Amino acid sequence: MTSTQNSGRFLEDFRQGELIRHATPRTLTSGDQALYTALYGSRFAVQSSAEFARGLGYADMPVDDLLVFHIVFGKTVPDISLNAIANLGYAECRWLKPVYVGDTLATTSEVIGIKENSNRQSGVVHVRSQGRNQRGEVVLEYVRWVMVRKRHADSQITPAPVRALLTEVAPGDLGGAVPPLNISAYDDALAGSARRFGAYEIGMKIDHVDGMTVEEAEHQLATRLYQNTAKVHFNQFAQGEDRFGRRLIYGGHVISLARALSFNGLANAFHVAAINGGRHVSPLFAGGTVFAWSEVLDKCAVPGRRDIGALRLRTVATRDLPCTAWPMPGDAATQAQVLLDLDWWVILPI
Amino acid sequence: MTSTQNSGRFLEDFRQGELIRHATPRTLTSGDQALYTALYGSRFAVQSSAEFARGLGYADMPVDDLLVFHIVFGKTVPDISLNAIANLGYAECRWLKPVYVGDTLATTSEVIGIKENSNRQSGVVHVRSQGRNQRGEVVLEYVRWVMVRKRHADSQITPAPVRALLTEVAPGDLGGAVPPLNISAYDDALAGSARRFGAYEIGMKIDHVDGMTVEEAEHQLATRLYQNTAKVHFNQFAQGEDRFGRRLIYGGHVISLARALSFNGLANAFHVAAINGGRHVSPLFAGGTVFAWSEVLDKCAVPGRRDIGALRLRTVATRDLPCTAWPMPGDAATQAQVLLDLDWWVILPI
Amino acid sequence: MTSTQNSGRFLEDFRQGELIRHATPRTLTSGDQALYTALYGSRFAVQSSAEFARGLGYADMPVDDLLVFHIVFGKTVPDISLNAIANLGYAECRWLKPVYVGDTLATTSEVIGIKENSNRQSGVVHVRSQGRNQRGEVVLEYVRWVMVRKRHADSQITPAPVRALLTEVAPGDLGGAVPPLNISAYDDALAGSARRFGAYEIGMKIDHVDGMTVEEAEHQLATRLYQNTAKVHFNQFAQGEDRFGRRLIYGGHVISLARALSFNGLANAFHVAAINGGRHVSPLFAGGTVFAWSEVLDKCAVPGRRDIGALRLRTVATRDLPCTAWPMPGDAATQAQVLLDLDWWVILPI
Repeated sequence: MTSTQNSGRFLEDFRQGELIRHATPRTLTSGDQALYTALYGSRFAVQSSAEFARGLGYADMPVDDLLVFHIVFGKTVPDISLNAIANLGYAECRWLKPVYVGDTLATTSEVIGIKENSNRQSGVVHVRSQGRNQRGEVVLEYVRWVMVRKRHADSQITPAPVRALLTEVAPGDLGGAVPPLNISAYDDALAGSARRFGAYEIGMKIDHVDGMTVEEAEHQLATRLYQNTAKVHFNQFAQGEDRFGRRLIYGGHVISLARALSFNGLANAFHVAAINGGRHVSPLFAGGTVFAWSEVLDKCAVPGRRDIGALRLRTVATRDLPCTAWPMPGDAATQAQVLLDLDWWVILPI
Repeated sequence: MTSTQNSGRFLEDFRQGELIRHATPRTLTSGDQALYTALYGSRFAVQSSAEFARGLGYADMPVDDLLVFHIVFGKTVPDISLNAIANLGYAECRWLKPVYVGDTLATTSEVIGIKENSNRQSGVVHVRSQGRNQRGEVVLEYVRWVMVRKRHADSQITPAPVRALLTEVAPGDLGGAVPPLNISAYDDALAGSARRFGAYEIGMKIDHVDGMTVEEAEHQLATRLYQNTAKVHFNQFAQGEDRFGRRLIYGGHVISLARALSFNGLANAFHVAAINGGRHVSPLFAGGTVFAWSEVLDKCAVPGRRDIGALRLRTVATRDLPCTAWPMPGDAATQAQVLLDLDWWVILPI
Repeated sequence: MTSTQNSGRFLEDFRQGELIRHATPRTLTSGDQALYTALYGSRFAVQSSAEFARGLGYADMPVDDLLVFHIVFGKTVPDISLNAIANLGYAECRWLKPVYVGDTLATTSEVIGIKENSNRQSGVVHVRSQGRNQRGEVVLEYVRWVMVRKRHADSQITPAPVRALLTEVAPGDLGGAVPPLNISAYDDALAGSARRFGAYEIGMKIDHVDGMTVEEAEHQLATRLYQNTAKVHFNQFAQGEDRFGRRLIYGGHVISLARALSFNGLANAFHVAAINGGRHVSPLFAGGTVFAWSEVLDKCAVPGRRDIGALRLRTVATRDLPCTAWPMPGDAATQAQVLLDLDWWVILPI
């Protein structure tokens, strides 16, 4: 008889090519949106105003892109990363359809790579996860890889190499979640900035200025809202005996904070279209104040679209370190204060 | 002139047979559901996905059973327990109709027992409370008894004994809140477990494994959401001078935490049908981490139903004490760490 | 090239008569209402029950008046008060139309007064702000004045005096946000009190009794929900080096707490119709417990209405100081514990 409880998968439990259907489909509601606003203070007009969104051509105000990400991601945790030692990276992450209040999302993951570590205690699993709505349309897709414990050090693991991952989502693959926009209805004053796509140049660096301090109650509310069950975020009794002595804050919480902070400097970047790659450089704990800055790595037209353009950004988030001096993950002096190093595509009106 | 403020009832103010209509009817919204998810991280598919619920035969995803309980209960506090010394117990608690977003609930209580304590300073009042929706249908009914202060020690109290309460809600009285289900549509993978009714045996003990640390902001948000006005949960200035020196966490918050934790081991127990009895063994304060375990006390068919079966569970919740060793309320060593001892019926698909 | 980031306006940047269209229109949802209830525990039946509200003649349960205020106000912060030294006062604040879930609010402000301070480092700007719904109807209007820094001490500022502000909103200007009510449907038991308009007399003082302790997570969630970007509420890293060493709690949070507490004594005062004037006497920090009391300054019929009457209240909120002794802002002994001194009109059924 299998155990009643879910104790998560170990490295031995993954099979190359296996398709995992994750539990707990989730209907998104205006309550989720309101909580998302309360947790991060996001101010992009498209996601804040049904009038603004409909005027542009959306069916309604779309659910925040990262809220979609967190919901889709959360479902994978009990099957993929309950025994994870670390969440190592993301690639080929794309938003493919808009998500609206009332849509129900469910997630599947395909195992696309398995590799044992040389210490034989653990290994790395790659999965491609897809979030689908109630019509079966893929709304979000991404690859992530995690370091997972082995159940027994002496188990034999058949390596299954992952094919090379793209270092960049191609411009032609961006914008599926943005319907054709009546861009003449885009109101810069209501959006908060007159700086559209044309106002940004490659190499520009933008300090997002503001700082946001995170409380235990906040990240717990967020992470439970996403039905993410990773134990390290919630159980102070156990974490108190861990090397940090603290609850770790879900890395996605930092991404959402950085995104909300980026409004100051990128008010018209109303949509996250893709994540090329990302890394949680160091953990965040409650009481820390998050800052962020972005650099424009690239800008490009979106093939077939005259309404929108794409900026490739590198966004760095820090803890207790304002970003006036553009702190980098490699800096020895600030290493422990860099939380996040993210390479992503955002969409702006032309 | 009566006082403008509500100072609550004392023992003298209750009349046997009196029907109290409580204030503040409450329309439940998707915002309440989202907050409930954020507060407890509940993952039962029926309450999480409108698609899943409708596929089974619900009109929509039903509002979480315990959210209904807390809303119905909260209304009784200003009239019943504002001067309560302790909330002593529950019995004959049944969920009778599903509650959906948009329904408006109001509560009435009938006084069914009054007894003075031998110290003449206080007494015990029994009430039967009923929550009704906007169509006047009773959606939830329960008996609770509270110890209430007397206004004057020398007042004469006419005793009005309560009839014997049932120690168990009969199986035939379960399941009114579950419409006839198209059980072939029940998807175990989406629900999170292949263990349905038949997989549980009397005497099984299930450690729910996970722990959840509670913050002051969290229980205050919850208890205000329920419009529960008990002063001990909110006023640190006053509580600081009390014997505990702390705000007490609403006992219902612990019930909801235990229920959400029980997903790990009871993922298909999608509905709480009844509470046979329950006791808050010791209080919880912010900073504590809640764990829980359950024992299957009984299992039975639900008369007239071929879609669902009922498990009678004893669920024990603890503070800062993992439940691998099944801590019991009577254990001397762990007594102060046992928070809750609950006897309830849950429903699973057959 | 103007800066990408918003660094806010300094005194030099305001022009008398200028109309500023603020960013981030906002669609109000049932999620916002649920969060508002969770943050303050408000219990007025009209805003809590769609059935109660519709029975009286509302189209639905209206969004809480102060939630409307905070949303309209929040939009003005990036343009008006990002460099504010202090929020000095409010006047001529009126609620003009009911706001329902699904309405989208946007705010404009007209600059109606500019005055340099004698120290030449700063000055005072008066603005009249208007919140409009998606039909262009003004739902809320108010004047506020703020002390704003100058960019350069030696800049020349052309003074533009504000016309004298009304010390009281006239009774004939009250009640626009209350549709004609079928007052025979008003159910005192469900509302929580039999004390209607006629039961209050000028000079009555009401201690609202209860106290509410505020946590960092709570005021941050609230202030982000309002998309209010004032840095002092969120950034402990910066505030730690400020004179208080702490995050300041948004003054509007105190107003909402006082309003929710006022239910105990004013349960039938279901609508805030106007603010005649108000002052944040001292700041609140997390951990403080808020109390409040009110005095009836005036009572009057609402011209043209036989369903409702208006009470003019002075409401004082305090920190860690119960209001049994009616603490006043001028009291030397309690000065630092008085948070708020508000003069407003509330509406009750006749």
